[in-house]
Amino acid sequence: MDIAFIGLGGMGGPMARNLVAAGHRLQVWNRSPERAAALVEAGATLAATPAAAAAAADCAVTMLADDAALEAVTLGSDGLVAGLRAGALHVSMSTISVACADGLAAAHAAQDQGFVSAPVFGRPDAAAQAALFIVAAGAAADIDRCQPLFDALGRRSFVVGDTPSQANIVKLSGNFMIMAAVEAMAEAMTIAGRHGVDRETMLGVMTGTLFDSPIYRNYGAMLVNDRFRPAGFAAELGLKDMRLLDSAAENVRVPAPLLGIVRDRLRGLVAQHGADIDWAALGKMVRDSAGEI
Amino acid sequence: MDIAFIGLGGMGGPMARNLVAAGHRLQVWNRSPERAAALVEAGATLAATPAAAAAAADCAVTMLADDAALEAVTLGSDGLVAGLRAGALHVSMSTISVACADGLAAAHAAQDQGFVSAPVFGRPDAAAQAALFIVAAGAAADIDRCQPLFDALGRRSFVVGDTPSQANIVKLSGNFMIMAAVEAMAEAMTIAGRHGVDRETMLGVMTGTLFDSPIYRNYGAMLVNDRFRPAGFAAELGLKDMRLLDSAAENVRVPAPLLGIVRDRLRGLVAQHGADIDWAALGKMVRDSAGEI
Amino acid sequence: MDIAFIGLGGMGGPMARNLVAAGHRLQVWNRSPERAAALVEAGATLAATPAAAAAAADCAVTMLADDAALEAVTLGSDGLVAGLRAGALHVSMSTISVACADGLAAAHAAQDQGFVSAPVFGRPDAAAQAALFIVAAGAAADIDRCQPLFDALGRRSFVVGDTPSQANIVKLSGNFMIMAAVEAMAEAMTIAGRHGVDRETMLGVMTGTLFDSPIYRNYGAMLVNDRFRPAGFAAELGLKDMRLLDSAAENVRVPAPLLGIVRDRLRGLVAQHGADIDWAALGKMVRDSAGEI
Amino acid sequence: MDIAFIGLGGMGGPMARNLVAAGHRLQVWNRSPERAAALVEAGATLAATPAAAAAAADCAVTMLADDAALEAVTLGSDGLVAGLRAGALHVSMSTISVACADGLAAAHAAQDQGFVSAPVFGRPDAAAQAALFIVAAGAAADIDRCQPLFDALGRRSFVVGDTPSQANIVKLSGNFMIMAAVEAMAEAMTIAGRHGVDRETMLGVMTGTLFDSPIYRNYGAMLVNDRFRPAGFAAELGLKDMRLLDSAAENVRVPAPLLGIVRDRLRGLVAQHGADIDWAALGKMVRDSAGEI
Repeated sequence: MDIAFIGLGGMGGPMARNLVAAGHRLQVWNRSPERAAALVEAGATLAATPAAAAAAADCAVTMLADDAALEAVTLGSDGLVAGLRAGALHVSMSTISVACADGLAAAHAAQDQGFVSAPVFGRPDAAAQAALFIVAAGAAADIDRCQPLFDALGRRSFVVGDTPSQANIVKLSGNFMIMAAVEAMAEAMTIAGRHGVDRETMLGVMTGTLFDSPIYRNYGAMLVNDRFRPAGFAAELGLKDMRLLDSAAENVRVPAPLLGIVRDRLRGLVAQHGADIDWAALGKMVRDSAGEI
Repeated sequence: MDIAFIGLGGMGGPMARNLVAAGHRLQVWNRSPERAAALVEAGATLAATPAAAAAAADCAVTMLADDAALEAVTLGSDGLVAGLRAGALHVSMSTISVACADGLAAAHAAQDQGFVSAPVFGRPDAAAQAALFIVAAGAAADIDRCQPLFDALGRRSFVVGDTPSQANIVKLSGNFMIMAAVEAMAEAMTIAGRHGVDRETMLGVMTGTLFDSPIYRNYGAMLVNDRFRPAGFAAELGLKDMRLLDSAAENVRVPAPLLGIVRDRLRGLVAQHGADIDWAALGKMVRDSAGEI
Repeated sequence: MDIAFIGLGGMGGPMARNLVAAGHRLQVWNRSPERAAALVEAGATLAATPAAAAAAADCAVTMLADDAALEAVTLGSDGLVAGLRAGALHVSMSTISVACADGLAAAHAAQDQGFVSAPVFGRPDAAAQAALFIVAAGAAADIDRCQPLFDALGRRSFVVGDTPSQANIVKLSGNFMIMAAVEAMAEAMTIAGRHGVDRETMLGVMTGTLFDSPIYRNYGAMLVNDRFRPAGFAAELGLKDMRLLDSAAENVRVPAPLLGIVRDRLRGLVAQHGADIDWAALGKMVRDSAGEI
Repeated sequence: MDIAFIGLGGMGGPMARNLVAAGHRLQVWNRSPERAAALVEAGATLAATPAAAAAAADCAVTMLADDAALEAVTLGSDGLVAGLRAGALHVSMSTISVACADGLAAAHAAQDQGFVSAPVFGRPDAAAQAALFIVAAGAAADIDRCQPLFDALGRRSFVVGDTPSQANIVKLSGNFMIMAAVEAMAEAMTIAGRHGVDRETMLGVMTGTLFDSPIYRNYGAMLVNDRFRPAGFAAELGLKDMRLLDSAAENVRVPAPLLGIVRDRLRGLVAQHGADIDWAALGKMVRDSAGEI
C-alpha cells in the first residue's frame, strides 16, 4: 500500500519501520526531519510537507503527541486534508480527545476522505515488536482497508464502533483503569505497610491470586522498587489523558469520582515532582500523603 | 490430626468435608447443629460446645461470619480458649478485623496456646474444590503445623508475616482491590456507554489487552449482564469488610480516598437496594448516579 | 459617561436601567432587540451592532451568558474590539473563564483599548436594587475610571488584582464555596435526619451559632423546604462555573477534591433532573444517594 | 442546685467556676485533683470519687475528653451511675459518640436516673465568658431542669430532640461543617493564589460578601497567617470527631464524600505534622498537595 506516515517519535518510528518491513511504500514526514534518516535508509521517502507525503497515498497514518500536533498536520494548506485525494483514508493512532477526533472526521468527510481512529496500548518496545494492541473505530469499510496495517503493527486489533472518536474513549478509559489499579494497590500497600506487611509481600499475594495480569505485575513492581525515572510514560501525559477523559465524561454528564481522584493525584505529582516523572509515581503520592519519607 | 472445626456455613461446611476426606479426625460444632448432619455421616463427631470440640484437638479451625461470632465461640467458659490444651493451636480462617485478631491472639497466648490468622480468597465452589487461596500470618512454627490443613483446603497458601492480624489486613486489602476494580470498570463503561460503546465491547477490549485476569472477567460480566441477585457475596458483608479496612487505615493514619469512594457506594447500595444484593452492584450505582435507568 | 451596554437579559436589563438612572448616556445592543424596548423608553438608544454601540463610547459594559456569547460580541468585524476607539475601555461583568478573559484582554490591548473584568455576586433582584457585589481586576487606572459605574450598579466593589482574569477566578471561587457549603449542610442534615433530627432543627442550630450568614440561611431554607423549581440559578450554569474553575485549577496543577465532589453532584443532578433545576438541588442528590425518597 | 461537676480541664474549669458564681453548690472531681484548687478556693468541695461527688447532687455535669474518659467516671463502682440517687440527672457536655451517649442513657435509665446530652460550641475563652452555645437533647422534663445551668454556662441553648445522642450528632455535624468550610476556603485560596490573588484578598472578598460569619473570618485568618501552633483545637481531636460522625453515618448507611475528604486530610495532617497541630492546618495540607512550600 502507498502510505503517508506522519510522526516518527518513540512510537511512530518503530511503527513506520514495521510497515516498511511488511512491504508497504512509505512517504514520511516529521517536524524534525533528521529523525527520518534511519527510515529513509530502510527505503522510505522523506516528504517536504504532510500534504506532499499524502499526495499519492492510499492511506495516511499519524502518530503524534496530542490534539494540537495532530491538528497542525491535518488542517491547513500543507495538511493531510489538503493533500489526500478523495477516497483516501487517514488512520489516526495518537491518543487524542473525542472532540478532536470528531472534528477531524468531519473535516475529512467534507473532502470525501475517510477517517479511522485507531489508538494503541503499548510502549515503544511493544511498537518495535509489532506487539501493540490496536483499538479501532470508524466506518466498517474503512476499517477493513486498515486491516493489513494493523496486522503489521500489532498483535491484535479490536473494533469498538463506527464513530471514530469511540476508539479514543476506549483508549482513554484503559489508561484510566491503569491509574485506578495503581491507586488501589498503593492504598492497600500503604495501609498494610504500616501494619508491618512489606509491599513486595502484598504484591506477591495479589498477583498470585486475584490480580494475575501484567498491569498489576508491572506497575506493582514499580511501586515496590520506587523507581519512577526515567519515565516510561510521563506524568504530564497521563494527566493530559485523564483531562481528556474527564472532558468526555462532563459532556455526557457522568459523575466519575475515581477519575477525579487520579486526576488530583497526577496534578499533585506534576506540581511536586515535575512533569517528567513516571505516572506510576501516583502511587508514591499515596505514601507521601500518609507521611512516609 | 485431631481437629475441632467450628462453623459449618456455606464456606465452613465444604472445608470441613475436605479435612475429613484428607484423613483428619474432626469434632465439629455449629450454632445450628442440624447443619452438622452430613459431616457426621462422613465420619465427624458432633460436639456439644466449642470447648468440648477442642478438648482433644491439636488444632481448632474456625470459619465464621464476623468478629462477634468468632469472639462468641472463642472467649467465655464454653469457648476455645477454655477448651484447648496448652500448646494447641487456633487457626482462624474468617474475614475479621485487625483488632479482633490481635485480641484473640493475646487471649490464646495467655494460655500458652497458638493463634494463626488464615483468611481465604474464594467462594463456596472454590471451598468445595479445595481451590481456595489462603493468606496466613502467625509464628513460623505454628504456620508450619497448619501446612497439612492448608494443603487439604486450598490450592496455594501465602505467609505474610508473624503477627496474625497481618493476614487479615492483606485479605481485607484484596477485597478492597476488587471493589476498586469494579468502580473503575463501571466508570469507564458508563462514560463509554454514553458515547455509544456498549459495555460488552468495552469489557472485551480490557480483558483482551491489559486486564486479562479472572477478577476483571467475572465482575465485568456481572456489570455487562446486570445480574446481582442472588448475591455471590452480599453488599452488607462487603460494606463490613471496607469498614474493617478503613478502621485499620484510620489507626495508622493513612488517607485512603479510593477506599472512601467504595465505602460510600456500598452504603448507598445497601440503603437503596437492600443488604442482600451482590456487592458488585456497586457498579450499578455508578450508572444510576448518571441518570441511567 | 457615554456607555455601550451589551446584553439586556435578567441581569443586564436592570443594570442598564440603573446606569441610565444615574445619568449616563447608553447605546444598547441585545441579540433579541425587542428586549431593549423598555430601556429605549427610559432614554437609551438602540444600536444596530455592538460595534455601532461602541463607536462613541468611553466604556463598553457587557453582561452575557458565557464565553461564547461574550466572544461573539467582542471579536469579529461588528464587535467591540473593532468598534471602540483607542483609549476606550471594555468592562466585562459576565462570569467567564480565565482563558476567555485573558484572550479578550490581549485583543483589546492590541488596539490600545483597556479591559477590566468585573463579575458580580447577586441575583436579578439585587441587580435591580443596585445591591450587587462587584469583584474587579485590571489596570489600576482603568478600574478608577469604572468606579462611577460600580457605584451605580452595586453596593460594594472589591479590587483583587491587576490582571483582569483574576476577578473571574475569585468569582468562580465564590460560587464553588456556595456549593461546598450546600454539600456540607446536606451531608450533615442527611446523617442527622436518619438519627431523627429534622432538617429545620439542624439548620436552626447552625445558623444560630457558627454559620450565621445569608448563604447558610438561604440555601439551608431551600434544602429544608425541598423547593428547587423554578431555579434561581440553574444547575447547568452552576456546572459550567465549576468546570471553568476546574480548568483554572488544572492549568496550575492544584488538586481540588471538594471541587471534584460538587462537579460530580452537579453532573448527576443535570443527568437525573434536567438542566433547569436550581443548583441547590445538589443537596437533594445527597439524600437520594442515601436512599431517601 | 447541688451539682457534681466532673472534669476540670480547659473547658470544664471555667464552666464550673461560672456555676459557682451563679450560686450553685458544687462537689467537684478531677483525675488530677490539683486542678481543683482554684475552685475549692472559690467555694466548691473536692470529692474523693465521682460517686462521692454525686451522692447529694440533683445533677451531675461532666466535661471530659472522650468516650473512654466519660465511661470511666460514669460506670463502675465509683462512678456516677452508682453514686447518683434515683431521680437525679446526669448532664453530659462532652463531645462523644452516639453509641456512648446511647449506652450511658440506658445505664442511667436502669437506675431511674435521667440523662441529658448537652455538648457545646465554643473554646475555653467562650467557656470563661459564659458565652458557649449549648446543644441539648433528652426528655423534655430533664432538659427543663437543666435550664438554669445552661443559662449560667452559655449565651444560648438549643433543644434538638428527646433522644440524648441526637445532640451529639448535631455537635459533631457542626465540627464537620467547620472543617468543610476550611477545605473549601483552602482549595479556593490555593487555586486563586496560583493565579496571583493573595489569600488575604480572597478572604476579604468572601467575608465581605457571601460568607460574613465568624467561622469564615476566624479560620480564614488562620489560613492567611499560616499559624497553627499552639493549637486552639488539636488535629487529633478533630480527627476523632470526624471518626465519630463517620461511624454515625455508616450505621444509618449515608454516603458522605465530603466527610471522607476531611477525614483523609486530618489523617494526613496528624501523620505528617503530629497530633497537636491545630485542625485548621487541614488547609495547609491543601497547599502542600499542590507543591507549595
